Amino acid sequence: VEQGDAPRLTALMEPLHPADIADLLEQLDQGPRHRLIALYGREFDGEILSELDDSIREDVIGALAPDVLTDAVRELESDDVVDLLEYLDEPTQEAILEVLEASDRVAVERAMAWPDQSAGRLMQREVVTAPERWTVGDAIDHLRASDDLPDQFYHVVLVDPRHRPVGHVTLGKLMAADRVTPLADLVEPSFRTIPATQDEEDVAYAFNQYHLISAPVVDDAGRLVGVITIDDAMIVMNEENEEDLLLLAGVGDESIADRTLQIARQRFPWLLVNLGTAILASVVISQFDEVLAALVALAVLMPIVASMGGNAATQSMTVAVRGLATRDLTGNNALRVLRREVVAAGINGAVFAVIMGVIGTIWFGLPMLGVVLGAAMVINLLVAGLAGVLVPLTLDRLGIDPALASGAFVTTVTDVVGFFAFLGLAAIVLL
Amino acid sequence: VEQGDAPRLTALMEPLHPADIADLLEQLDQGPRHRLIALYGREFDGEILSELDDSIREDVIGALAPDVLTDAVRELESDDVVDLLEYLDEPTQEAILEVLEASDRVAVERAMAWPDQSAGRLMQREVVTAPERWTVGDAIDHLRASDDLPDQFYHVVLVDPRHRPVGHVTLGKLMAADRVTPLADLVEPSFRTIPATQDEEDVAYAFNQYHLISAPVVDDAGRLVGVITIDDAMIVMNEENEEDLLLLAGVGDESIADRTLQIARQRFPWLLVNLGTAILASVVISQFDEVLAALVALAVLMPIVASMGGNAATQSMTVAVRGLATRDLTGNNALRVLRREVVAAGINGAVFAVIMGVIGTIWFGLPMLGVVLGAAMVINLLVAGLAGVLVPLTLDRLGIDPALASGAFVTTVTDVVGFFAFLGLAAIVLL
Repeated sequence: VEQGDAPRLTALMEPLHPADIADLLEQLDQGPRHRLIALYGREFDGEILSELDDSIREDVIGALAPDVLTDAVRELESDDVVDLLEYLDEPTQEAILEVLEASDRVAVERAMAWPDQSAGRLMQREVVTAPERWTVGDAIDHLRASDDLPDQFYHVVLVDPRHRPVGHVTLGKLMAADRVTPLADLVEPSFRTIPATQDEEDVAYAFNQYHLISAPVVDDAGRLVGVITIDDAMIVMNEENEEDLLLLAGVGDESIADRTLQIARQRFPWLLVNLGTAILASVVISQFDEVLAALVALAVLMPIVASMGGNAATQSMTVAVRGLATRDLTGNNALRVLRREVVAAGINGAVFAVIMGVIGTIWFGLPMLGVVLGAAMVINLLVAGLAGVLVPLTLDRLGIDPALASGAFVTTVTDVVGFFAFLGLAAIVLL
Repeated sequence: VEQGDAPRLTALMEPLHPADIADLLEQLDQGPRHRLIALYGREFDGEILSELDDSIREDVIGALAPDVLTDAVRELESDDVVDLLEYLDEPTQEAILEVLEASDRVAVERAMAWPDQSAGRLMQREVVTAPERWTVGDAIDHLRASDDLPDQFYHVVLVDPRHRPVGHVTLGKLMAADRVTPLADLVEPSFRTIPATQDEEDVAYAFNQYHLISAPVVDDAGRLVGVITIDDAMIVMNEENEEDLLLLAGVGDESIADRTLQIARQRFPWLLVNLGTAILASVVISQFDEVLAALVALAVLMPIVASMGGNAATQSMTVAVRGLATRDLTGNNALRVLRREVVAAGINGAVFAVIMGVIGTIWFGLPMLGVVLGAAMVINLLVAGLAGVLVPLTLDRLGIDPALASGAFVTTVTDVVGFFAFLGLAAIVLL
């Protein structure tokens, strides 16, 4: 396909959704990607830009011919342009703002005035409103008379004389009701407004928790400034979930389209932190070099204690981090969750202590080695349960994303405690 | 509040959304939870049951008085009842089916005939349809004449004479258009149908990828059987993301409301697998007991090599597992991603080899020990990048959820390779 046959390429790409074309561009290397864009030429749709991953969006914009870019951007709704601009550098932002028509540019610039990742950035500005005293008939006549209704809308928002939203009516109810019914009789019980400065993560939480379909956005004075719909909230929720997953694994904001050097550079700091904690664990081990020299079996078995503690801690920690993200773990039940994690870890610790005690005894023929191994296992799993909950909770209290930093702290604790408990007990009991 | 003052409790709970009441019940211990339910009594709303986590739903249903349960279940729409039944045991299912009215019971039983976690289970059966040849006026008159429109609907689905969906029109467009406009002129370009047997994970993917708001569900013959709306897809997506996050950490389907013994039992198998892999690593170490006895510094440093490998592997693996879940990692770019991960791991490996080489040399005054440490580091990080991508890809090919089993495999590989490379090189070079 890539042999310069532009009409054939266009024919092949025609049935594809912009999101699929964006995925295709993300999967290509830079060279073929630019050739494809050049060939595709004027057919390039603005929505493809919206669908692209941040990491290659700038690259694609740079590869577009200026007139193609102008057409593509002008096709987009103003909230999509805002979304597009958010992750671009200044010069590219300016270039795009310049090609917009004046009215769109004002709308976009006003949206960009809201904080990063806030409801104000996420919302669309076009809202269908009706005065709160109108009847169904008034609203329908008004809708049929307007000629620039938004592409997608699901509710008519009722506003008071000061343009503050007081309720909303679904289009379905509007359709089904008598013309004389007051709109105020049809409002949805699930109505909620969202402050424009609210973080988009909290917006996504509200949509998911209360099954909202759309919600009006208000400024500090409570006046209607826009509306957020569930499809935008779904995208945010998916991104936040992805972020937590990657952060917990020590991967930053990374995508499958990133280049090798970028990847290596982004992962380096996490590995460096891990190196620091690993060296700390080694320092603990080095305190016991005489014990190790006297009994090599200790060196053979000690990674088991550390590894089991690390695993148990990761389990507790992940449940705690997820609980914090979904607000299922709160100040009210923190103590109960902590107690439960520690007791559960203690139960498993006791079981594994017996298993390992037996294995250690048989393997090296030293019953006391088995006892030491079992005791260290119980201690380390208890500490794992404790640290797995306390570390994320503490980070959250300090205003740090618990997904970001919990892993390093928690495994440091279990490594250090594991080696110290095992080798320390061995030094006392076996020598 | 819990001192038996029912009117006061009811007054306090009144302003709460059912989802918040469900969260409250999840956060309580079983004793207080039952007392609260008994006090709350007849006010108990069916929607609270829908919002409850699976883990305590059965407990709450058991605690409800029979007449309260009957009222609560009868209030629900049939798709919510299906959702409720999905995770209950047989006797509880039967008990709930019995209290339903006959027509609802048939609807629920028909939905339960679709496979677990399929689109058929997720959909609601009530769809607003119109023959494809109707005009806007026909549709509006029909809507206004019907008296049992669904609570929430966003599209009118056009069907052919054999009841196969051919397109859909948003209510907004219907409102704005002239009465004489044919409905067929207003259909949305984003229209897609969903097979009833499709897995709900794929349904959520389609909604997210193509920004669907609602999509008709069809049976094998292409006939319309129901509709899925974006709010249901959002819930599924959130659950799938949560499942991946927990599985990667070696935690099964677990919630903050689970009890201690349940938790301990659920986590046990994962820890047991980890114990197996840790013992495997110990067996590798035990092959080098003479080397370790000769040079205790090796025992001090060897956890660093294993830990760095494990971390790098977790990074690559998490990116790969997420890529598979979002379909960004496919057969087409697998080789490119693999190459990139290995090269990125190699670059970081080289940097850390130098750092650790220097630290090892200074710490123990043995330059050759530093060289061995650095070389083992490079080898293990390369293997980490390789295993981090290959293991999830292979599991995915075999039809196993890569989030489920990748972790254990990958860290086994890096532990074994790390210890073997470090101690093996040391045996050759230093003795």
